[in-house]
Amino acid sequence: MVKVAVAQAHLQVGDVPANILKTLNLIDTVSNLGAQVVVLPELANSGYVYQNKQELIKSLENTDALQMWQDKSKQYQNIIVAGFAQVEGDKVYNRSAIIDSGKILEIYTKVHLWDKEIGIFTAGNKAPKVVNSSIGKISTLICYDLEFPEYVRIPVIANVELIVVPTNWPKGFYNRPTKENYPMELIKAMAAAATNKIWIAICDRTGEERGVQWLESSCVINPDGWPVALVGPGEGYAIQDLDLSLAHDKAISPSNHIFNDRRNDLYK
Amino acid sequence: MVKVAVAQAHLQVGDVPANILKTLNLIDTVSNLGAQVVVLPELANSGYVYQNKQELIKSLENTDALQMWQDKSKQYQNIIVAGFAQVEGDKVYNRSAIIDSGKILEIYTKVHLWDKEIGIFTAGNKAPKVVNSSIGKISTLICYDLEFPEYVRIPVIANVELIVVPTNWPKGFYNRPTKENYPMELIKAMAAAATNKIWIAICDRTGEERGVQWLESSCVINPDGWPVALVGPGEGYAIQDLDLSLAHDKAISPSNHIFNDRRNDLYK
Repeated sequence: MVKVAVAQAHLQVGDVPANILKTLNLIDTVSNLGAQVVVLPELANSGYVYQNKQELIKSLENTDALQMWQDKSKQYQNIIVAGFAQVEGDKVYNRSAIIDSGKILEIYTKVHLWDKEIGIFTAGNKAPKVVNSSIGKISTLICYDLEFPEYVRIPVIANVELIVVPTNWPKGFYNRPTKENYPMELIKAMAAAATNKIWIAICDRTGEERGVQWLESSCVINPDGWPVALVGPGEGYAIQDLDLSLAHDKAISPSNHIFNDRRNDLYK
Repeated sequence: MVKVAVAQAHLQVGDVPANILKTLNLIDTVSNLGAQVVVLPELANSGYVYQNKQELIKSLENTDALQMWQDKSKQYQNIIVAGFAQVEGDKVYNRSAIIDSGKILEIYTKVHLWDKEIGIFTAGNKAPKVVNSSIGKISTLICYDLEFPEYVRIPVIANVELIVVPTNWPKGFYNRPTKENYPMELIKAMAAAATNKIWIAICDRTGEERGVQWLESSCVINPDGWPVALVGPGEGYAIQDLDLSLAHDKAISPSNHIFNDRRNDLYK
């Protein structure tokens, strides 16, 4: 079993040092409870609702979240997956790092940008890698990336066991009826887990930035597609034991199999 | 607006004439209520739980469901989409017909076969066509076909407005927790509708055949992914007015678009 924690942080646009401190405190809390994988939200260093690229670049000056997360990961000898904004030259990227015992195994750049991100971030051009980490085969996607089933298939075909998804799910899209238990963003994630028989760990946001609120839907989804741990409203975390070997068994009936049943000859 | 009915029939393995009569009665009922599209379950002529191919072929002798559905469609000048077993030589196919005012517009053969179907039916080799019907652009898939997102994309990219899905969803798969509102089969369908911004009309089964029960989850799902009409337990139907033009608008935020956001360069 692998103990995975999703740490739904209350972050604030513009105050990067405070955000980093917040993430370090959450890492301490869940690591001391035995978390072997700690998942933080998308853009956990910067917050989300920037007016423009210049404002974001300015706010990131003289900060190094990645180094501080590496130090924590080394201290606890665990895995930290965190979303962060990173400046390179005159560009800013929306990224997610997989850090294992202090070592960076993967820096993934978000490919599918959401709404105003398009004016701020430069999109990535590489599909997610499957990383052989100390706990198993993991990949990271970011937020809206998860809504493209063809994209999710890429690490799945490469035998990923757990997809880790830092996200900032803003409220107010997909016209959710009040009677529905889950937002459509989560329904899509559940379908992705079941369609591929993989674990998915999502770390969403809480709090409010410049009028934008979040779905607060951080969760762990099992390979049958069901949320087995949900953080719920407010700042907090969920810790869940995962049997990653469940993701190896792609059978879904005595005669059906996630991979063998695909008809690649017909998917154009 | 287009009035669509899903007619969740109680069918019985082995008694094809009784099954056909049942479907004709349901067609009468919903057509007299103004249904412009009538959707019947998968294998609506034959029932489902056959021991082997020979038993199924024998039960289909001297019956012609297709002709009787054509007559009804001509009589009501509406569209009937029905699943049926069809014998050709020594093979049997699991098919769905789109019949418009008596005329057959499409005969689709199920590509992704479920469980024991594999020993009985020959799988199809063609992706679904988008048919220009009297009410708009429609396609039909059958049951398990809907669980392959790459496959659903094919009619979507060809601008389908409504996907019509005759299905027999057997109970007991995907380990559904009792607290969950919807079965995973339906969750996947909801995700498919929202991911593609299309209407989906699903006609499931009721009753019991040789110990197999059904999810009784016939429904109409809107382009935001939410079920707007559900039949519920037992034999019955749901009728729903659909604005098919909603499927033309692929925008999901001021800057995001189902088609434009796809990164075909990365989906291998």
